[in-house]
Amino acid sequence: MRQNPQRRAALLDAAIEVLAREGSRGLTLRAVDAEAGVPTGTTTNYFANRAQLLVQILHRTRERLVPDPADLSGPLEARVLLRDLLDRMRRERSVHIAMLELRLEATRRPELQAELAGFLASELEENVAWHLGSGLPGDRRGVVLLYLAMLGLMVDDLTVPTLLDAHPVEGLIETLSDRLLQDPPPA
Amino acid sequence: MRQNPQRRAALLDAAIEVLAREGSRGLTLRAVDAEAGVPTGTTTNYFANRAQLLVQILHRTRERLVPDPADLSGPLEARVLLRDLLDRMRRERSVHIAMLELRLEATRRPELQAELAGFLASELEENVAWHLGSGLPGDRRGVVLLYLAMLGLMVDDLTVPTLLDAHPVEGLIETLSDRLLQDPPPA
Repeated sequence: MRQNPQRRAALLDAAIEVLAREGSRGLTLRAVDAEAGVPTGTTTNYFANRAQLLVQILHRTRERLVPDPADLSGPLEARVLLRDLLDRMRRERSVHIAMLELRLEATRRPELQAELAGFLASELEENVAWHLGSGLPGDRRGVVLLYLAMLGLMVDDLTVPTLLDAHPVEGLIETLSDRLLQDPPPA
Repeated sequence: MRQNPQRRAALLDAAIEVLAREGSRGLTLRAVDAEAGVPTGTTTNYFANRAQLLVQILHRTRERLVPDPADLSGPLEARVLLRDLLDRMRRERSVHIAMLELRLEATRRPELQAELAGFLASELEENVAWHLGSGLPGDRRGVVLLYLAMLGLMVDDLTVPTLLDAHPVEGLIETLSDRLLQDPPPA
């Protein structure tokens, strides 16, 4: 397999665009070549097969979604962090649509599901550990529930963006963090 | 267009299975004929085209997901209702996977997105109105947030069912309803 890291990342970014635009059945190694504007066969030199490509896309999404360190400096406030998360999601719409496509494809491919489950579980654990060590209010269960509510919010925002027009997102996020991030009652 | 209601419902149920198993690009009128075990061309007699079929699937999912009246009789408790909702979702896995496929297809088809947005917005409004009139605790914003968190929970449960193994769902649902369904502070 070829290993030029920049070329590899560019192919994965092209694959993300194909997934987001065409859905998972439109994702072929040739479609990635075409999207990336490289000679036919290039993607095959970097990924042994489509299954390998899917797994590498998963890991590339994490690189694309890493928070801006500037957002995590200064005094932390949950509602501001959630708002930044949503803004980042809206800037990286293709990455999130591609992730939803991978989730659906995982319902049909056990090996992808295992990879996705391990990937998302470690991401969730890292988020919980970071939150609990950050000095922000909230217990473990509250952080997991916040993750679930933000996942639901993102699914709606990506797929039916007008659905929550009657419920401005700033207010939703504020109430969400106020109510879910309660410190556990003293023992 | 033919109108035999039972045949029509059976074709829509077959379409839901195709969507769940093959994804939206696998959904053709012929694939629905094959899945329903009817002669090729039957589905074309009921739905003018694929776009019409998608819209009708949407409405069929609502018929399939209507709560059991028995679940809504007797004293209401939010955590019990949410648990019933999750159980119903797990029994109707294909319907929910099909809905996620429709959501993703809607990102590529503005007319489907408009239909889906109207459909989901009226469902959400009905849920909020029912809840506020039910005597259960909770304000409007709390019910919307509960909807979002349950959507996130369902997406995870459908696509990466092991992800929340470390966070038993009964506990999550209990804390979710306790924290989100607070009555608004007195004016």
